[in-house]
Amino acid sequence: MDNKPFNDPGYLAESEFVVRDYECDVQGVVNNANYQHYLEHARHEFLDSKGVSFIGLHDIGIDLIVTRIEIDYKYPLRSRDRFVVRTALRRQGNVRLVFVQDIFRIPDEKLIVKAEVTGVATRSGRPVAPGEIITKLGLT
Amino acid sequence: MDNKPFNDPGYLAESEFVVRDYECDVQGVVNNANYQHYLEHARHEFLDSKGVSFIGLHDIGIDLIVTRIEIDYKYPLRSRDRFVVRTALRRQGNVRLVFVQDIFRIPDEKLIVKAEVTGVATRSGRPVAPGEIITKLGLT
Amino acid sequence: MDNKPFNDPGYLAESEFVVRDYECDVQGVVNNANYQHYLEHARHEFLDSKGVSFIGLHDIGIDLIVTRIEIDYKYPLRSRDRFVVRTALRRQGNVRLVFVQDIFRIPDEKLIVKAEVTGVATRSGRPVAPGEIITKLGLT
Amino acid sequence: MDNKPFNDPGYLAESEFVVRDYECDVQGVVNNANYQHYLEHARHEFLDSKGVSFIGLHDIGIDLIVTRIEIDYKYPLRSRDRFVVRTALRRQGNVRLVFVQDIFRIPDEKLIVKAEVTGVATRSGRPVAPGEIITKLGLT
Repeated sequence: MDNKPFNDPGYLAESEFVVRDYECDVQGVVNNANYQHYLEHARHEFLDSKGVSFIGLHDIGIDLIVTRIEIDYKYPLRSRDRFVVRTALRRQGNVRLVFVQDIFRIPDEKLIVKAEVTGVATRSGRPVAPGEIITKLGLT
Repeated sequence: MDNKPFNDPGYLAESEFVVRDYECDVQGVVNNANYQHYLEHARHEFLDSKGVSFIGLHDIGIDLIVTRIEIDYKYPLRSRDRFVVRTALRRQGNVRLVFVQDIFRIPDEKLIVKAEVTGVATRSGRPVAPGEIITKLGLT
Repeated sequence: MDNKPFNDPGYLAESEFVVRDYECDVQGVVNNANYQHYLEHARHEFLDSKGVSFIGLHDIGIDLIVTRIEIDYKYPLRSRDRFVVRTALRRQGNVRLVFVQDIFRIPDEKLIVKAEVTGVATRSGRPVAPGEIITKLGLT
Repeated sequence: MDNKPFNDPGYLAESEFVVRDYECDVQGVVNNANYQHYLEHARHEFLDSKGVSFIGLHDIGIDLIVTRIEIDYKYPLRSRDRFVVRTALRRQGNVRLVFVQDIFRIPDEKLIVKAEVTGVATRSGRPVAPGEIITKLGLT
């Protein structure tokens, strides 16, 4: 019941994963830092699907950087668990993008992690209005 | 000026690190997830210095788990940068411990990351009052 | 031409992957250590498909451990490259298993990595004849 | 007895480490891939001490890449173990450098890992004679 994403924030994309044994630690569960890896990979897959390449942008001098992350760990993943990262997105002010990302175990839709990741586009270390990115992401 | 830890939350411990090249990503800076590794290692060093062994507890059926993390990324670390993680600690209610952890570059004390990490002790997946741990940590 | 696996050692399984950005380092290519992660995950998927659970064995006191690894890095993988790990297996003496594992980029079959990974089953740190494992893997 | 580095290959440098809990896996020991991280960091520290910067070279178009690695895993490291990586170096032909790297636990000098890592310097993906590097490393 409370495993269900009853409060869909408007997910735009989902990426599917399986836990790899090396991602688990001595407690037998996925190490906390690895969830950030999953979330990052899901964001990059989402951006890529919209024609926004993380590394392509870096190569032309624009870096997408994370300025803040909040993660609530609800339930641990274990070896070989399958799961999805679902991603929603909203603007915050002129330069910030907030990714709302939730992780659900497959197939029982158990809520594993709730996260909010705030990012900005920067050029030479300074925030820039992410105009073209916004357009590509359909946020205008 | 604003690099200084002007607002010391009562740090109880610090751990020193140097950035390893494999921790940096294509942008040439430390990948965000690795800061969680640094914070975790600093927490475990702190607990260990107080006689609280993360893995020792696991072996007797008690797991210290992180339930929430907030990280503000202020400035990136680069290859071979030296830095410290400083850790403060407070109780929250009966079962939660909140670690306030800040990362500063050495030697200029540039603020790199501000974090709050909430943890609980669990036995068989249920939170337990961390009595002995609290005593050892001097939080009573 | 020389990208082709002209010398098939008798692959028994293959696992497909995509490079995740966090696996790449400052040089823009997958960090060498991550290939060991890919190889390990492919071995565990292979073992699992045969009913041999790495973590299940650990829980009954048997650890499969790697005693030697040789990796030839032929060509680097980059962000978002797709690839397969193909795995063959042979016995060596009474207690050793040798996994021959090669990585090929998709879809052009470019050879990326050639590896040989030697493992033994241990109980309380001592090698044991991997009888049941051998049977399950069809190596008798 | 057989823990002793009875056969010193002419170590030129050593780097000291402590095992971090997140480097350990479900078996309670350091995951095999992490030894490659330790070896890499020790090589880069060694090169850096000689004025050869891995990332500095990358920035001027020269990449030091690993073409082959052999690792013998002799004994596992566990949580909080202290250890050193000792590094020797020899030329192989005109373009190859071979790093002989051994890991010993502190303080008992237990041999943990023996490794040989072959590297070449490349420019635009092609091997180049590592002239200046050789000079800096005192290998001429």
